[in-house]
Amino acid sequence: MASKKQITVGGVLLGGGAPLVIQSMCNTKTHDVPATVAQILAMEQAGCHVVRLAVPDLEAAQAIPAIKKQVHIPLVADIHFDHRLALEALKGGIDKIRINPGNIGDKAKVKTVADACKAAGVPIRVGVNSGSVDADLREKYGVTPETLCQAALRNLEQLEDCGFFDTCVSLKMSNVFGTVKAYRLMAEKCDYPLHLGVTEAGNEHFGTLRSAAAFGGLLVDGIGDTLRVSLTADPVREIYAAKDILKALDLHTGGARIVSCPTCGRTQIDLIGLADKVEKALAKLQTRMTVAVMGCVVNGPGEAREADIGICGGRGEGLIIRKGEILHKLPEEQLLPKLIEEIQAMTGETL
Amino acid sequence: MASKKQITVGGVLLGGGAPLVIQSMCNTKTHDVPATVAQILAMEQAGCHVVRLAVPDLEAAQAIPAIKKQVHIPLVADIHFDHRLALEALKGGIDKIRINPGNIGDKAKVKTVADACKAAGVPIRVGVNSGSVDADLREKYGVTPETLCQAALRNLEQLEDCGFFDTCVSLKMSNVFGTVKAYRLMAEKCDYPLHLGVTEAGNEHFGTLRSAAAFGGLLVDGIGDTLRVSLTADPVREIYAAKDILKALDLHTGGARIVSCPTCGRTQIDLIGLADKVEKALAKLQTRMTVAVMGCVVNGPGEAREADIGICGGRGEGLIIRKGEILHKLPEEQLLPKLIEEIQAMTGETL
Repeated sequence: MASKKQITVGGVLLGGGAPLVIQSMCNTKTHDVPATVAQILAMEQAGCHVVRLAVPDLEAAQAIPAIKKQVHIPLVADIHFDHRLALEALKGGIDKIRINPGNIGDKAKVKTVADACKAAGVPIRVGVNSGSVDADLREKYGVTPETLCQAALRNLEQLEDCGFFDTCVSLKMSNVFGTVKAYRLMAEKCDYPLHLGVTEAGNEHFGTLRSAAAFGGLLVDGIGDTLRVSLTADPVREIYAAKDILKALDLHTGGARIVSCPTCGRTQIDLIGLADKVEKALAKLQTRMTVAVMGCVVNGPGEAREADIGICGGRGEGLIIRKGEILHKLPEEQLLPKLIEEIQAMTGETL
Repeated sequence: MASKKQITVGGVLLGGGAPLVIQSMCNTKTHDVPATVAQILAMEQAGCHVVRLAVPDLEAAQAIPAIKKQVHIPLVADIHFDHRLALEALKGGIDKIRINPGNIGDKAKVKTVADACKAAGVPIRVGVNSGSVDADLREKYGVTPETLCQAALRNLEQLEDCGFFDTCVSLKMSNVFGTVKAYRLMAEKCDYPLHLGVTEAGNEHFGTLRSAAAFGGLLVDGIGDTLRVSLTADPVREIYAAKDILKALDLHTGGARIVSCPTCGRTQIDLIGLADKVEKALAKLQTRMTVAVMGCVVNGPGEAREADIGICGGRGEGLIIRKGEILHKLPEEQLLPKLIEEIQAMTGETL
């Protein structure tokens, strides 16, 4: 289930029933402030809610204030190995710290970071990856969903021992089955917000498919509060991929979702062309709605019934159907203009 | 869980632990034999295991023998409204009948079809769609996963009453959450093979994402024995989409699965370019293996450990790692040729 606990990342709510938060990560050198700012602004434009920056050295940490001044979404510092970089990022006004506790060092260092985060009101993500499970767990049990979960719990407890509870958690594996199992286990064992992701997901095409398969398997059970689609691609593409996956799951907050049937021997209109035209014509729609584009009289009218509005094509002509009610019967070429006209009337938007 | 029952469709095993079967449906006029045969041959080439044909009239049913003679995969007749078309398809040597029992008519007609299928050793798919749930159920309960499941059970029982058990079943909705819930319910209530699909999934991009999300949610629990990705697109594209989804889920039976990390501020090689080159170079690989393409020293070596072989890039140079063991440290430009050389040596294939 969606986490019971809610945290706040620079004003953005995470968990506890808040809308799903889309994240990505810059691939610029963080110390190159103009390049990093330009990339973050492009991500904001695409719909990113929270963005992470690599902080591999002091120069990167010290660039944070200059970056923050020029962007509008919360920033997360990605910290590995050196806990002092987390402290420097906090000084620079960072909104969240991601640590991979397996490589941050001893308890005293973790406590120093937790105390500083607590003082600043900054949450921490415990980010466990299949590549960085604690060596003792890995050697004993191998890299499994269970060991990722154990590694995460161990590190959450370490933070809890410091009196720190302002936490979210991720457990990324590079395969869908393992990722789903790890998050299901975690959702049973804690009520911290869960940050979903598949690590090393692959290029844009396969990475998006892998993420869709894993997020589908989790979100259908209400598991997950924020997500990142990791792609070996321009990070702005990760935002579009994330938004598309949410649309595919009907978890998008605005815009048209087109349902259209596969063409088959029964289809008597140019359905592929029509579906593409409808998608383009509605690209700017803000109101959330489902629009059906159906090619035949067998399943069309029945399945268009679930949509807010739809076209159902027959032989050279078709129907406009709204919530199951036939509004118009028109020649094929008049279907699209009339559909747009009706949607404009329903939403008050100009398309 | 994967169905306990196994059926045979023209020699192809379905359910009972058999490998997942990929299906699609022709969008030609079935009576246009040359066009239908050409499309089926293209689907076979792409990797389709079983193909369905619309049989809306006698002409279509009578074309089946001529089509069967020229293709190599089993054929399924899609029957609506008129049960006599099923009988004609059986005469023509069809390998499976799909009926949408909500529109086939009274019990006597269903029994006639069941008896003829039994005599011919031909299985039936009970295909319930959200658009064609029995009117009484729809009016009483609406179109929900539960009503689809009830409609399917009602029709399975009708066949069982005829002594017919050579059956598989599908329950397609146009949304991912409903589809997952419907199949989960069905998997609890019967042990017939399950044919997975999302209906009206949309165009190639969204339809593939919706199917990936739904199939991910089901196959991770072992639910599903055969699948169709319904796309408003050339049906040959449905085969590629299905194969890609299985690859994303690590359920592919051959070929390379590339895992690659997202680029980030830590990346010091041209990772996007390298991952694309690796994917192209391995496109023809038949042996099933996982190949990692990693961009940094933080997660790279750890995550490449799960792969059969991998590249892990540093500053202008990188490592070739096999099952966690470092084989070579090389300049960036020598990484790809050496990787291919090692994979050829491991598999005995020439790439």
